[in-house]
Order: sequence, then C-alpha cells, then structure tokens
Amino acid sequence: MTFLEFCAEHRERVEQRLSRAIPRDDIPPTRLHSAMHYSVLNPGKRTRPLLVYATGAMMGAHPESLDAPAQAVELIHAYSLIHDDLPCMDDDELRRGLPTCHIQFDEATAVLAGDALQTLAFEVLLQAESDIKPAALLRMLKQLTHASGSLGMGGGQAIDLAATGQVLSLQQLETMHLMKTGALIEASVLLGYWASGRQDASEELALKQYSRAIGLAFQIRDDILDIESDTATLGKPQGSDLAANKATYPALLGLDGAKQHAKNQHALALEALNELPYNSLLLQQFAQHIVERDR
Amino acid sequence: MTFLEFCAEHRERVEQRLSRAIPRDDIPPTRLHSAMHYSVLNPGKRTRPLLVYATGAMMGAHPESLDAPAQAVELIHAYSLIHDDLPCMDDDELRRGLPTCHIQFDEATAVLAGDALQTLAFEVLLQAESDIKPAALLRMLKQLTHASGSLGMGGGQAIDLAATGQVLSLQQLETMHLMKTGALIEASVLLGYWASGRQDASEELALKQYSRAIGLAFQIRDDILDIESDTATLGKPQGSDLAANKATYPALLGLDGAKQHAKNQHALALEALNELPYNSLLLQQFAQHIVERDR
Repeated sequence: MTFLEFCAEHRERVEQRLSRAIPRDDIPPTRLHSAMHYSVLNPGKRTRPLLVYATGAMMGAHPESLDAPAQAVELIHAYSLIHDDLPCMDDDELRRGLPTCHIQFDEATAVLAGDALQTLAFEVLLQAESDIKPAALLRMLKQLTHASGSLGMGGGQAIDLAATGQVLSLQQLETMHLMKTGALIEASVLLGYWASGRQDASEELALKQYSRAIGLAFQIRDDILDIESDTATLGKPQGSDLAANKATYPALLGLDGAKQHAKNQHALALEALNELPYNSLLLQQFAQHIVERDR
Repeated sequence: MTFLEFCAEHRERVEQRLSRAIPRDDIPPTRLHSAMHYSVLNPGKRTRPLLVYATGAMMGAHPESLDAPAQAVELIHAYSLIHDDLPCMDDDELRRGLPTCHIQFDEATAVLAGDALQTLAFEVLLQAESDIKPAALLRMLKQLTHASGSLGMGGGQAIDLAATGQVLSLQQLETMHLMKTGALIEASVLLGYWASGRQDASEELALKQYSRAIGLAFQIRDDILDIESDTATLGKPQGSDLAANKATYPALLGLDGAKQHAKNQHALALEALNELPYNSLLLQQFAQHIVERDR
C-alpha cells in the first residue's frame, strides 16, 4: 500500500466512524446535530487522525484500538475550527470550500456545536474501553485535555488573537504555534503510540521531537500556501493572513527563508524517527507530505 | 454541623481548589486565565459541587475523593454560563451581580474561556487517579461527558434557544430542563455516589429519581424567583425571562400552580431518598433548600 493509499483508506475509515459517533440529525436538537455533522464531515485533510493511524500502524497496534483516539483528535480539531471562525474571533466565512458553521447555520448554533464536539471527543475516547486498557485510556485522556486547554490549543488561539497586528519574534511565533497546532499533533502521535500498549519514555521523547518538527513544518507550509496557492485549492481565501495582518513565517523570514525553515524541520523530524527501533517509513512519508502538500 | 454550615464549609473547600486548578493569571495567555478565574470564582451558589459533597458524605466517601468531581461539575457549569451569556445566545450583561465575561473582557476571550473551562473540567477529574479507582473514574467521566453534550446540557441550551417565543407544553418544558440543568445535577449526585466506591443499580435509580425531582424543582424555583425577587438579590435582572419571552413554569401553570409543582417535586425527591438504606438527611435538606432558596 502506498502512502496515499494508506491516507485514503484511513480517511474513509475515520469519516465513517465520525458520522456514526455524532447523534443523527433527526434526533433533537436537530439543528445542533446537523451543524455538528456539517462541520466534522466536510472535506477535511484528517491530518490528526491519520497521524494516530500511522503511528499506531508503526507500533503494530490493532486498528480497532486506534479508531477512538483518531476520532477524538479530529473532533477536537473540528470544534476549534468552528469557534476560530466565529465573527468575534477570525471572522471567516469560508472553510474547506464551504460556508463556515455560523454562516451556514447561525452563531449560537456554531458556539453550541463547537462545545458539543469538544465534549463528544472525550465521550468517544471513553467508548474505547473494550479495546484499550484503563491505564492507557486515562493517559490518553490526560494528554488530550492538556493538549486542548488553555496551556495548549485554546491558549494558542488566545495568543494568536492577541498577536494580530503585533510584531512577533521567531521564538514567540514558534511558542504560539506549538500551543495552537503542535500540542494536538503531539497528542495524535502519542495516542497512536499508547494504543499499542507500549509506554517507553525515550521513545515518547523521540515521538515528541518528531511531532514538534512536523507541527511547525505544517504551520510554515500553511503560511507559504497562503501566499503561493489560490482560493480554490485552499478552500479558504488566499492571502487571508496578510489581509488579517497575522504574524507568519514568510513575514518574519521571507518566502525563501520560510521554505528553508520548513526543510530544516523536516530534517529534524527524520532525525527523531531514527531514534526509534521501528520501521518508521509511514511517519517519514507523513513528514515529507506535510512540507510538500499543496492544500 | 447544620446544613448551612455544611454548605459554607464545602463551598469554601471547592472554591479554594478551583482557584488552584485554574492556571495562575500571570501565566500566558494571561487575559484568558484572568477570564477563567473571574468567571469561576465570582460569588456562585456552588449547587452542583455541594451535591457531590453531600451525596459523597451520605456514602461515607473520603472528602479527598470528592474534590475532583466537585470541581469538575462546577467547571462545566461555569463554562456553560459564559457561553449562554454571549450576545449570540441569551445576551446577558449581568451574572451573579457582576458584568458577564464578555462584558468584563471581550467576546473572543469569553468563547475561549468557556472552551478552556470545559477542557479543564475533564482534566481536573483525571487528576483524581490517586483517590479514585480507574473503573470508577472512567464511569464518572462517561457520565459527565454524556450530561454535558448535545444530548444533555448543550442540547438543552439549543432547545431553549429554539423555544424562545414558542408556546411549549409542560412535557416539552420538562424535557428541555432535564437536559439543560437536570443532566448535570444528576451527574453531580452520581459522581458523589461513585466516589465512595459503591455501585448498585437500584441505589443509582433512586438517586436519579431524586436528581430529576430536585433538578426540576430548582428550575421551577428559578422561574418563580425571576418574578418574585429583585435584581439585587438575584444578581441578574429580575423579570428577564418575561422580557426575553422565555417559556417558564409560571407562564404555563400560573404562579400558584408553579409553586404547587415545585412542592410536588420536593415530595418526589424525598420519596426517592426513602428507597436508600443510608442516612439521607443532608440530601433531604438539600431538596428543601432548593425549593425555599431566595437567590
């Protein structure tokens, strides 16, 4: 199976399960459940669930033990996108080529859909009790809460909002992104690792270094695409970072400097994988895909 | 110790722990952490944590095993209040006598503070691993997620919003309140029960019936106070239900009918406690307090 086949197969796998995990949209409150389906099942890249599956596959974990963590990280991601798009936050009207949740439904429904998707992330993960031992499940839940909260993803968004229009140093930009996207990417990798039943501090350290590098590379690539790509490919307005006066890697390092920085992160990711006594081909391909992707 | 002394002591106990559970407001993002402290540590009644402590005390649970669930249910409640108060939802400017979170800070901070408090609820509960066995902890987490999500509290708020200006039947009003407030009250009682290590289906059923009755009584009393009390006592504008054209018990049953309905729920709560082989005096007093409280 090629890397792209692996991605296509597992993208479909997690989407099928997500569709069943969200209460049907004929169950009241129907509008809320419709909004949850709409926001989760639009054409997303599923980067985070794919990282769960890829890391788990490297460890020989049972696919069934990966389904719950894969759904959980995507649900956290989906909730954060809905809230980030709200008028009081980034005020975005387009996401993945479709109207954002508050445009398609309304603001109140968007707030509640995000809230309920966050809850559902933990609820779905808790349903994995038959496939994952209690100690590993509790460890996963802890990692996921920490990655999502005010010292992780949520805090990163707060820092991002406060930084709009400000000049950030490279270090400040990095801290912001490590919280806003890096923490959940790290959680995706660690949850996939722990689902195998394995728990080793030095391997976890290597996986954290890998996650940190691909998380930053992912963000740098995002910033580059915002300049080099077009609205149709991106599914959101091209040039929106510039328009919103956001701190970005190209703004700090220039376009060539940002591309070099992404290459450096790619190299760091591969170095980290070298520390692992496993066949890490899938995770190597993942790192390459992240710096080369065009959407 | 009298009932009011029990409440005062445990209100202080949970507030001290909540204050430590939220990251200090000099840790970035400082504005977000300030908003979280502000919204949780204003003068609340702490009904839900007190129910955890009272049920746990009835069962002889160690107080230390009750601290995490007590904080968790209050954090879920606090997050829901912040989001319910937003301009796109109930658009309230006053809560517990103070400016609501989005007035004191800003809308984006209020959305993020609510989000982060929801995450923190699960994170705090997960920290109880040293006091609560894994199986009981996972059971608590499941109950709390279910009570909070789109089929519980979050869904109840969606139904409430959709119902504004509509004429509801008594049954529709009850369904809405059982989701919006009843589910979290039930979770508070069950979490306190499970913290003792006990798990018995018939006792859980009695506790669910008790919770259902006091949850409804709580809401009926809220509706009555909105008519009979004053803004200073309530800490929010008196008459706001009427102004917002909300479906209420007095609107459906008349003021006397609503008072009788609250008395009936009180009686049902006491009946349910009679099924339990424990000294349930504290929970009896709790039920009485709920129908007699003036704020």
